[in-house]
Amino acid sequence: MTNFSLKQYRKEQDYSYTLGAYATIEMIQARPEIVKAVYIHSAYRDRSVLETLCQQQHIPVVQQDKAFAKVDRKENCFVFGMFSKYSDRLASDKPHILLVHPGDMGNLGTIIRITAGLGFGNLGIVTPGADHFHPKAIRASMGALFRIQCCSFPSFESYRSQFGRHDLFSFMLRAATTLTPETCPVTELFTLVFGNEAAGLDEEIFSHVGTGLKIAQTPDVDSLNLSIAAGIGAYLFASKNKLI
Amino acid sequence: MTNFSLKQYRKEQDYSYTLGAYATIEMIQARPEIVKAVYIHSAYRDRSVLETLCQQQHIPVVQQDKAFAKVDRKENCFVFGMFSKYSDRLASDKPHILLVHPGDMGNLGTIIRITAGLGFGNLGIVTPGADHFHPKAIRASMGALFRIQCCSFPSFESYRSQFGRHDLFSFMLRAATTLTPETCPVTELFTLVFGNEAAGLDEEIFSHVGTGLKIAQTPDVDSLNLSIAAGIGAYLFASKNKLI
Repeated sequence: MTNFSLKQYRKEQDYSYTLGAYATIEMIQARPEIVKAVYIHSAYRDRSVLETLCQQQHIPVVQQDKAFAKVDRKENCFVFGMFSKYSDRLASDKPHILLVHPGDMGNLGTIIRITAGLGFGNLGIVTPGADHFHPKAIRASMGALFRIQCCSFPSFESYRSQFGRHDLFSFMLRAATTLTPETCPVTELFTLVFGNEAAGLDEEIFSHVGTGLKIAQTPDVDSLNLSIAAGIGAYLFASKNKLI
Repeated sequence: MTNFSLKQYRKEQDYSYTLGAYATIEMIQARPEIVKAVYIHSAYRDRSVLETLCQQQHIPVVQQDKAFAKVDRKENCFVFGMFSKYSDRLASDKPHILLVHPGDMGNLGTIIRITAGLGFGNLGIVTPGADHFHPKAIRASMGALFRIQCCSFPSFESYRSQFGRHDLFSFMLRAATTLTPETCPVTELFTLVFGNEAAGLDEEIFSHVGTGLKIAQTPDVDSLNLSIAAGIGAYLFASKNKLI
C-alpha cells in the first residue's frame, strides 16, 4: 500500500509534483528513477499509456480522487506525479543560459523549454529567484525540466568561479551593441545571461563582465517579455554556433 | 456623477477593461478618446500621475472600492480603466503578423507586445480565436494593444482578399525550410503566419500558400511555445528587413 503525505507544494520539501499527463509522462521517460508515484483521477480517460509506462518502470499508480484537492487547488488536472528532488551539475564543456533572479514561474518554465529545445541543455539560476522545482514552473516547461541540467547558484560569482572559461554575453536594455542576425557572435563556449523581469541585470556589475548585448526594439514598448528576449537571443546564438 | 454598469468582461459587450495601472496609463496616452472612466482603489498609493493624466484628457476618475470585485475577481489590481471597443484597419503598406485561431490569451497578449516592439505594428487574428479585447490579453500585452492596429478576420481567405500583395511566410513544424539568421528572407512587404498552440497551421492549406518556414529545434521538445516562435520569427524578419 502506497501512502505518501500529500500537501500543497512548498519549497522546503524534498519532493515536488508534475501536474498534468504531459509533464508526468515526460518525467517518467526522462528520469524514471526520481518518480515516487503517479496519481490518476477516476475521470481520466486515457490511462493505459500511463499505466503501461509506470508498470515498465515499477512506479506505483494510485487512484485516489481526493489526493488532487490536496496537491492542485486550481489547475484542474487529472494526473499528477510525485517525485524526489535531485541535484544537477551543469556541463563545463557546453553553452549555458544563466538567469539572474528570475521572478516569474511561467517565464522560468518557458525558458527551461527554450534551453531544451534550442540545444543548450544547461540552465543556471542565480538565487533568490523562481524555484525550478515548483509545479507551476514544471508545467510551463511542459516537463522539459527533466531533459536538461538545471542548477541554482547563490551568487553570480559562485557561478563564475565554476565556469570561468565561458564567454559571457549579458542582455541589457541599455547595452551599446545590438544583437543582429549578421553580427551575432560565433564562439566555442558561451553563456547567455538574462536578468530579472522588472529590474534587469545590474549594470554596475554586468557592464564590466563579458559583452553587453541588447535586443533591438521600437519605443512603443518598455521592453519585450523576458522569455521572448531569451528565446530570440538563444535562437540566434544556437543557429550561429550550430547547436540546432 | 459617473455611473456605469460594471460587470465581469464578456465578449459580447461593446466595452472592456484595462486591469492595472500600467496598461491603463498606456491606454490613456495612446488612445485617450476611447476611455470612459478610470477607477482607483483607496489602497492605491501612486494616484497623482493617473489623476493628472485623466484631468488633461477630461476622463472621469472614480474611487469606488466595491467596483473592483465586480470587474476583477482574481487579479488583485488597484486601478482599472473602462473603455469603448473600437475598430482598427491594418495598413496595406506595412508588414503584418497573422495569428490563425490563437487559443491562449497570455500568448496573444505577448504577441501583441512583440507586434508593437519589433516594428510590425499590425496584427491580424483569424477567428475563432482568443479575443484581443479581453482584459487578460490586454494585461499580457502590457497595454501595447493600444499602440498597434489589431483586426479580426472571419477566415484566412478574407484576410488574403484584402492583403493580396504581402508575401506570406507560414510557420509550420514540418516545413521544408529552416529559418536561419543567414537565410531569413529580405522582401518589401510580408506577413508572418502562425497557427494555433495545439493544432498549428493546417498544412493542407498553408503548404500551398506562400513559403513554409520552421524554427530549428532539438528532439527534446515537442515544439517551442507559440509566443516564443513568433518572437524568434519576428525578430529575424524585423532585423533583416530594417523594421527595428
